Amino acid sequence: MPTPESPLRQAGLREHHLGLVMRQVAAAQRPPSRAEISAATGLTRATVSALVDELLVGRLLSEAAPVPRTGAGRPATGLALAAHGPAGLGLEINVDYLAACVVDLTGAVRHRAVLRADQRPHSPVEVLARLGTLAEQTLAAPDVAGLPIAGAALAVPGLVTRDGVVRLAPNLGWSDVDVPSALTATGAALAGIPLTVDNEANLAALGELHARSGDLADFVYVSGEIGVGAGIVLDGRLFRGARGWSGELGHMAVRPDGPTCRCGARGCLEQYAGQEAILRSAGLAGQQLPPAVALQQIAQLAADAQRSADAQQPVRRALTAAASALGVVLAGVVNLLDVETVVLGGIYAPLAPWLAPVVEAEIGRRVLTVGWSPVTVRASVLGAEAAVTGAAGAVVRAVRDHPAPWLTGGQ
Amino acid sequence: MPTPESPLRQAGLREHHLGLVMRQVAAAQRPPSRAEISAATGLTRATVSALVDELLVGRLLSEAAPVPRTGAGRPATGLALAAHGPAGLGLEINVDYLAACVVDLTGAVRHRAVLRADQRPHSPVEVLARLGTLAEQTLAAPDVAGLPIAGAALAVPGLVTRDGVVRLAPNLGWSDVDVPSALTATGAALAGIPLTVDNEANLAALGELHARSGDLADFVYVSGEIGVGAGIVLDGRLFRGARGWSGELGHMAVRPDGPTCRCGARGCLEQYAGQEAILRSAGLAGQQLPPAVALQQIAQLAADAQRSADAQQPVRRALTAAASALGVVLAGVVNLLDVETVVLGGIYAPLAPWLAPVVEAEIGRRVLTVGWSPVTVRASVLGAEAAVTGAAGAVVRAVRDHPAPWLTGGQ
Repeated sequence: MPTPESPLRQAGLREHHLGLVMRQVAAAQRPPSRAEISAATGLTRATVSALVDELLVGRLLSEAAPVPRTGAGRPATGLALAAHGPAGLGLEINVDYLAACVVDLTGAVRHRAVLRADQRPHSPVEVLARLGTLAEQTLAAPDVAGLPIAGAALAVPGLVTRDGVVRLAPNLGWSDVDVPSALTATGAALAGIPLTVDNEANLAALGELHARSGDLADFVYVSGEIGVGAGIVLDGRLFRGARGWSGELGHMAVRPDGPTCRCGARGCLEQYAGQEAILRSAGLAGQQLPPAVALQQIAQLAADAQRSADAQQPVRRALTAAASALGVVLAGVVNLLDVETVVLGGIYAPLAPWLAPVVEAEIGRRVLTVGWSPVTVRASVLGAEAAVTGAAGAVVRAVRDHPAPWLTGGQ
Repeated sequence: MPTPESPLRQAGLREHHLGLVMRQVAAAQRPPSRAEISAATGLTRATVSALVDELLVGRLLSEAAPVPRTGAGRPATGLALAAHGPAGLGLEINVDYLAACVVDLTGAVRHRAVLRADQRPHSPVEVLARLGTLAEQTLAAPDVAGLPIAGAALAVPGLVTRDGVVRLAPNLGWSDVDVPSALTATGAALAGIPLTVDNEANLAALGELHARSGDLADFVYVSGEIGVGAGIVLDGRLFRGARGWSGELGHMAVRPDGPTCRCGARGCLEQYAGQEAILRSAGLAGQQLPPAVALQQIAQLAADAQRSADAQQPVRRALTAAASALGVVLAGVVNLLDVETVVLGGIYAPLAPWLAPVVEAEIGRRVLTVGWSPVTVRASVLGAEAAVTGAAGAVVRAVRDHPAPWLTGGQ
């Protein structure tokens, strides 16, 4: 049965095929030839050649060293993602630092900058002005100069609407902050660069997904900071929830009548396993240390206690209590969603040697199917950089998946 | 850029278009004409006519009364799903009943049968033999005779592998029961009918989704029986989890150190809100009543207590305690997944007038975003029939979505 295709459908098909070729090149172990792309995608060689030519001219692909071949004939040219192609700017606002980074089209981090300081004493406008300056410095860095910037993505520890308004970031003390307007008003650095704003756990989960490409399809990324959040990846895609408010792990109850939380409810996980709860129960809360220093101290004390086999040392006890609460809630998450992996991120990443075994034990005790479907608990590979790297990476992924707008004459 | 299509791709496209036409007819408010289908799908009128002809010959569509038209010309013929087309057989095994039903291609329930009896004293082979007999009687019913049966789907209260093996059904006392082999061995009635086996909460959630077509895209269906399970629908699709074990709501913890559950863990929801826990705390556990009778009694007592405004009556207290535990866990689910709706099914459906307000209050207290993203808690529209109706409906949906195999010369 003939199926006439309208011009619109053909344009859609071309865009789809361009993305297919980009993903094929990105996923290959070594630069593939046009013939290899044709074999892998089922597109004809003529079609692949035409698509590749467009992508070369548009500086999204580059030609690499010839592919060695076993048969006769001249060696075919390999294709790689263009390191000089459109790059992504990642930005992050957290309670005690600001961060920026640039990731190029190949996925390499080209520049990274962190400004450590408590942001809570400052107004959103002040914080965004500092972030604007950090972004400007980052874009002016020698490693970045000359790279076209495809877009910027900003990670914030809070609930963000689709328009980039921070609806609520309780630990920053922000509510209803129109970030895109405020940030573009701070200077010329970001003018003309499309900006998206997203929850930090979501972007960190994307960072983790892309960093372990193919290896990890269903997982919960747990972001431990002053608040506790989660980014949920199901079947290789970020799950945002019906209205975009998924992942509020920190407000799942450990004990329904436990201590009162900042949110007004009782017994929330944040009260047992948030950064402040850990510092408090480790006896380090009153010392006015910057949190990053206090956490280093915790990791050090925990390592010392482990060497002396002292499980009763206050820091070890504090970590065990936090991990147990985390484990109760995560066992519930696994019972509900049947994810294979739990990734411990944020402050939990460096503390994973002490947290993961306790979380695993709770999961082993409480998940009905764990006997035949094991669950892995592991530290984030990106550590504290997960959200800002994930933010920049998300921009680059969007270019790879939808390259047409970056091509001359492309839609 | 020309994009050559292989024969394989064209066949795939035809199948896709056949499903598109079927879904368009199914979703229409009144029987649409060929021209209306063309307008709605973007397919040419010639293509739609060819597809419709195939579907008429294959008895998947039938012609309905002419569509009234406002303009000139003769009235166009409307198209409807064929009531005599391939139908689905739904089956269900639960702890205290067996059920069967047939749903035709239009979605109408043509026949329904329930056999109430405690299944726990019997072996899986005995239970499946009874179910085979019930299926045979159902298929021989006058309302069903002559309908081609496209497939059967069986709902069980347990964990089911992709091959239909019941891995674990703790409340039936089953483990590793190869249901398809055992059931086909019981007699000729089901011979040649493709059979799928699935978790009852999953099939009930599908039933609920289809019964409220379009109205409900993100929800958690809570199945209250002796066990407590959930079917999760995200973005209009059933979410099964990475390995098919999602929805074990009954084993999410209410209190980490609460009473020991059948599963070995402590404080599971099932111990607070399962059928036996409700009967026990209502003081009706020792009376040897069949559960269905005891539950009717609970609903009656709760209604009486409401009329006399006696919130301290033991049955009201028991329902409030169960609902509060359910609410704590469901608030966690909403914090995690951001679903808009919670559907109370199974024994919870008739008790919803007493359960829903308490569950809503816990959600209102514990869900961070509830202030601007309200969550609805409501009773299942299908009540106790949700799983078996959902099972038959799932078969029919598969025919609607992939009609090609049902057509002469299909593929």
